[in-house]
Amino acid sequence: MSSEFGCKVKISIFGQSHGRAVGVIINGLPAGENIDMDELYRFMARRRPGKNALSTSRSEADLPVFLSGIKDNKTCGTPLCAVIYNSDARSSDYDEFLDKPRPSHADYTAYIKWQGSADMAGGGHFSGRLTAPLCIAGAIASQILKRRGIFVGVHLASVGSVRDNAFPLFPGKELFEAISRKEFPVIDDEKGALMQAVIANAAAASDSVGGIIECAAIGLPAGLGSPMFDGMENKLAAALFGIPAVKGVEFGSGFNGSLLRGSENNDPFCIGTSGSIETAANNSGGILGGITNGMPLILRTAIKPTPSIGLPQQSVSLSRLEPEKLIIKGRHDPCIAHRAVPVVEAVTAAVLLDLFIEEGEI
Amino acid sequence: MSSEFGCKVKISIFGQSHGRAVGVIINGLPAGENIDMDELYRFMARRRPGKNALSTSRSEADLPVFLSGIKDNKTCGTPLCAVIYNSDARSSDYDEFLDKPRPSHADYTAYIKWQGSADMAGGGHFSGRLTAPLCIAGAIASQILKRRGIFVGVHLASVGSVRDNAFPLFPGKELFEAISRKEFPVIDDEKGALMQAVIANAAAASDSVGGIIECAAIGLPAGLGSPMFDGMENKLAAALFGIPAVKGVEFGSGFNGSLLRGSENNDPFCIGTSGSIETAANNSGGILGGITNGMPLILRTAIKPTPSIGLPQQSVSLSRLEPEKLIIKGRHDPCIAHRAVPVVEAVTAAVLLDLFIEEGEI
Amino acid sequence: MSSEFGCKVKISIFGQSHGRAVGVIINGLPAGENIDMDELYRFMARRRPGKNALSTSRSEADLPVFLSGIKDNKTCGTPLCAVIYNSDARSSDYDEFLDKPRPSHADYTAYIKWQGSADMAGGGHFSGRLTAPLCIAGAIASQILKRRGIFVGVHLASVGSVRDNAFPLFPGKELFEAISRKEFPVIDDEKGALMQAVIANAAAASDSVGGIIECAAIGLPAGLGSPMFDGMENKLAAALFGIPAVKGVEFGSGFNGSLLRGSENNDPFCIGTSGSIETAANNSGGILGGITNGMPLILRTAIKPTPSIGLPQQSVSLSRLEPEKLIIKGRHDPCIAHRAVPVVEAVTAAVLLDLFIEEGEI
Amino acid sequence: MSSEFGCKVKISIFGQSHGRAVGVIINGLPAGENIDMDELYRFMARRRPGKNALSTSRSEADLPVFLSGIKDNKTCGTPLCAVIYNSDARSSDYDEFLDKPRPSHADYTAYIKWQGSADMAGGGHFSGRLTAPLCIAGAIASQILKRRGIFVGVHLASVGSVRDNAFPLFPGKELFEAISRKEFPVIDDEKGALMQAVIANAAAASDSVGGIIECAAIGLPAGLGSPMFDGMENKLAAALFGIPAVKGVEFGSGFNGSLLRGSENNDPFCIGTSGSIETAANNSGGILGGITNGMPLILRTAIKPTPSIGLPQQSVSLSRLEPEKLIIKGRHDPCIAHRAVPVVEAVTAAVLLDLFIEEGEI
Repeated sequence: MSSEFGCKVKISIFGQSHGRAVGVIINGLPAGENIDMDELYRFMARRRPGKNALSTSRSEADLPVFLSGIKDNKTCGTPLCAVIYNSDARSSDYDEFLDKPRPSHADYTAYIKWQGSADMAGGGHFSGRLTAPLCIAGAIASQILKRRGIFVGVHLASVGSVRDNAFPLFPGKELFEAISRKEFPVIDDEKGALMQAVIANAAAASDSVGGIIECAAIGLPAGLGSPMFDGMENKLAAALFGIPAVKGVEFGSGFNGSLLRGSENNDPFCIGTSGSIETAANNSGGILGGITNGMPLILRTAIKPTPSIGLPQQSVSLSRLEPEKLIIKGRHDPCIAHRAVPVVEAVTAAVLLDLFIEEGEI
Repeated sequence: MSSEFGCKVKISIFGQSHGRAVGVIINGLPAGENIDMDELYRFMARRRPGKNALSTSRSEADLPVFLSGIKDNKTCGTPLCAVIYNSDARSSDYDEFLDKPRPSHADYTAYIKWQGSADMAGGGHFSGRLTAPLCIAGAIASQILKRRGIFVGVHLASVGSVRDNAFPLFPGKELFEAISRKEFPVIDDEKGALMQAVIANAAAASDSVGGIIECAAIGLPAGLGSPMFDGMENKLAAALFGIPAVKGVEFGSGFNGSLLRGSENNDPFCIGTSGSIETAANNSGGILGGITNGMPLILRTAIKPTPSIGLPQQSVSLSRLEPEKLIIKGRHDPCIAHRAVPVVEAVTAAVLLDLFIEEGEI
Repeated sequence: MSSEFGCKVKISIFGQSHGRAVGVIINGLPAGENIDMDELYRFMARRRPGKNALSTSRSEADLPVFLSGIKDNKTCGTPLCAVIYNSDARSSDYDEFLDKPRPSHADYTAYIKWQGSADMAGGGHFSGRLTAPLCIAGAIASQILKRRGIFVGVHLASVGSVRDNAFPLFPGKELFEAISRKEFPVIDDEKGALMQAVIANAAAASDSVGGIIECAAIGLPAGLGSPMFDGMENKLAAALFGIPAVKGVEFGSGFNGSLLRGSENNDPFCIGTSGSIETAANNSGGILGGITNGMPLILRTAIKPTPSIGLPQQSVSLSRLEPEKLIIKGRHDPCIAHRAVPVVEAVTAAVLLDLFIEEGEI
Repeated sequence: MSSEFGCKVKISIFGQSHGRAVGVIINGLPAGENIDMDELYRFMARRRPGKNALSTSRSEADLPVFLSGIKDNKTCGTPLCAVIYNSDARSSDYDEFLDKPRPSHADYTAYIKWQGSADMAGGGHFSGRLTAPLCIAGAIASQILKRRGIFVGVHLASVGSVRDNAFPLFPGKELFEAISRKEFPVIDDEKGALMQAVIANAAAASDSVGGIIECAAIGLPAGLGSPMFDGMENKLAAALFGIPAVKGVEFGSGFNGSLLRGSENNDPFCIGTSGSIETAANNSGGILGGITNGMPLILRTAIKPTPSIGLPQQSVSLSRLEPEKLIIKGRHDPCIAHRAVPVVEAVTAAVLLDLFIEEGEI
């Protein structure tokens, strides 16, 4: 019943989309860590709406205000609170949905859970806007990890049926950095152009598309995590499903691995160029038994097509229990997968920092 | 760092495969719940090795002994502890792997994490044997849920590229019950026969195959769960990744949903035959915004091919940091996906009971 | 490592005394609960400094701003965040203590824990100012409990050796209400006058005094709590020790009970006037085996004398490891026990609400 | 709702007094730690009944069986489970109390909580017998701490009004060791003899007495713990109230500190003989702001008089709601405070190990 994750580093998200502010409290950050505000702003800019023609026109400053936990831009050991005040909110757009829930949004489930008391304007606490404070947390976690040689990278692996290249066996931080600076976060820009065409086509049809995001982390020591329920995969999956629209999480070869034989899916051991133990493939995604093996951590998340589409849809009246046609007006993201890319990085970085600290590495 | 999951109903698993016992403690079970021991034994029998030619020859009684928490076969409110004593253990088979880790097993990550102190005979705490106490917990949770009209069903959705039928839009408890009584847990026995052929072929080639398990839950009230990090998907995924060999979890249309347009993936609302609100499709898998919507809950887990295969593999010597050929002797499951079927049901039932109680429904 | 307590209702406090704001996030509040803002302000006014000559001269509006979680003054089910912006902060007063820690404050332990990175101006995150957001949470919890017939009352049981009357066996909500409206929160105002004289004497001597706070809760159903580590006493004590300056917590006859014989300390059962089961004494403080028995819950907390005193004290230079005389300038509370009275009520109400909801009562 | 405590080192207790076994699961122990079984048995012998004329005549072997988590007497990193099988149980003695609850026992609260389903024979899960598995956990924690130079000591500070000497400002491990080897765990044996006379007198009068236990820990680094709700005092108190019959917990000068002036209660800083920072008094009990300051940690717990006494008492019939006289037959401990002494040590050691590991010290 809480919008919180993490054990040693606890991240608690609050806010409704059209309320006074959204924000985050982070408990358990190590003290004395410098926060590079420009780098943090750049991180946040990657998920910002209104960046290009593919995203909603709502524009916001989205600049966080730090209420606690830092002193002279350094963490001071006690809880960090950062808020983003809401400025550009038009709540009345959403009144219609109170009785006529939008398909595949949380309108109906929120109505049932909080019977008339939910504040669902703009999607309320379920809105993609809540990923802005997640990015604050992720940007901070990322900076702390980078200082320890751990880098998280992320790209849009597919939109509809158009696929980007996969990460190579040993992706480098330069690749991560390069993708993060792109307008459209893919490895192969030609594939990116095709993806954008798919999105534009869907938009032209008043429809939407989904995608898959691939995330990698390098520099992690072997030995992080635990067997059974407190392991790497458990914690990452639990947090990643907190990102709106995520409907699947897989590690390494994931669902495709179920199509392989053991002899194909197993990762043979080898001695790497530096003389250390590696594997010649990485179908395990860097995790075995819930514990990192020192290879790059690889995960993918499935992002469903934006449920807000311009086409007429079938809803019901909650008060009259009768079918109702629904038209969602206004502009909406025809795809949110590319905007969710930095969010997946943020959540992954936050979980990795948590486990890194839990193991006593910081 | 703990082999535990759940909030109100906490399930803690202990034991090493070749140690004295494996077992489970369950905190937070409601009091006064009858435990039908025969039904519990039947549940456990579904995952037992040695049931047919497709599984390992190790045979065990696997009958749990209840040390606490029940009185006259009724839960008494305080922690329930059940243990399964180990009888048929041959530890020396595993000595070789201490220095020569098996590819895609946890031998290497356990070695790094606990530097020489791990007890990895038979796979130690990472072994599939640890799913036996999980099934005790699941069988108990399942009985409690059934009394409230909630039923969990599960089938083997695919082995390699052979797919079973998917669950229908509204699966019934009779279907669940029928599958659970089959030797090979599929909906369509012809597909099941093909799957078994795939497994037998792999076995003949000293190789292994993976599969996908689909799970459904019916009778859940709408409104269970929470947005963001404490929701249905988060909790189910976190627990399901605790099952050895699970490398992916998805809900509803999951990864395939990323290929659809919003107009295809959205679930239109309708008024059901009983006059209540339903959706005409279930690509959401019964969950929106982390909260149940009253439709059947649908999830799938990817099970990797058994990493133990008879073919020669490439390992390394941990002490000498040199490549080493590895031959895993003895008989091993050419596929564990069919044996993991009841385990997925067990974990799902346990999580659902936890959330059901958390919402004050019991 | 987190400034948070509670299981179903999680309360997370943030802020440094002289930072931009202090505040609270509450996860898990029931939805649809009206928050009477005037009543909340009255609650908060009870702990406010500058109320009379016995308290520090720092004056603050202390009016909370609600950033999330409410809509039209009603809880909306998702996380509630309330902040109090700091206005009257003079940080340079505290620079001296960075190298010369004040005895029996947290200056030294914070220095060791966060080596130079702590923000200790005004006491930082350890300041009594952090009890203001605690009171926000407590005031909200209190309002929700009152609607269910549960009332929490509190009085200053002693200052130095002057003792107020104890609560009667069955205190009423009218008594709680009456005490809460007093300038000085005691049952017997003559004792209160004596206490104030003790405080004034200490102040005149540039010294300080401590006290004991007694808290009662009525209307609780029997059966709340659990044996061993998740019970009423465990949860209340864990939260109450989070109030700065609390050094002891006891229930019922507490430490004095160790002086009694069993025949004196045991609470004989009887049938109450309403025909229900009661006890003729309440040395158990309403809790047996961690579970409420339906009698009033009674607890006491020991508040140490304010460590900030005007008298010269012995410190050390952290940089030079040499003894140093220390004079704490400015005005300081000669006693904080009376200001902590509503804070004890706040924390108790918050824990009771948590357990009440955990048991499925709301 | 769970009989568990700890964050990194989680200790979960199970069992009913007259059930098949009581036991403990410990998650999160560091791997490779040797467990000296003889030392562990000695620890457990200190709480054993039947040791002398002052305790109950029930005799049990109480030797734990380790089901998991160790290999060759070394911890292996995964959950440790130890059980003590029950052998000498006579359940029918307790049938009478099902309808006629014993005053100041948990009979009534358990009845209300689990309406007829509780297993209360011998006190069920509330029994002092459940402290035996606590001592297993404490003995293990203690051995791990000792290897890091941290020692926990404990003595019976009072029985009724007879007081033992307090621990000196800097107690040594030799003192701790010496007390632990005594039949009656006091510093001053003459005081101990007086205490035993008090107990014998109470026994002769078919009555009982309570006491206070003082516990100290030395060798703790400064900087362990946190402000507010996750600190040393919070965690210790939460765990200590899990020991049956504990009704009060205080640190340093505790409740007595409320009688002192700040100038008396404050601990002046000084440079110790080794050149490090110390305080000249220890009214803070080694904890300021929830964080250790490097001085000995000092706490006291109040143990109520044994509620089972031979004198006739007033109960009620739960079924008939009428007053009933109650005579508790058989022999009962006239005092449990001396038997609780090692239990307080066990719980303190377990919490300290948890925090020590949480800080990354192991």
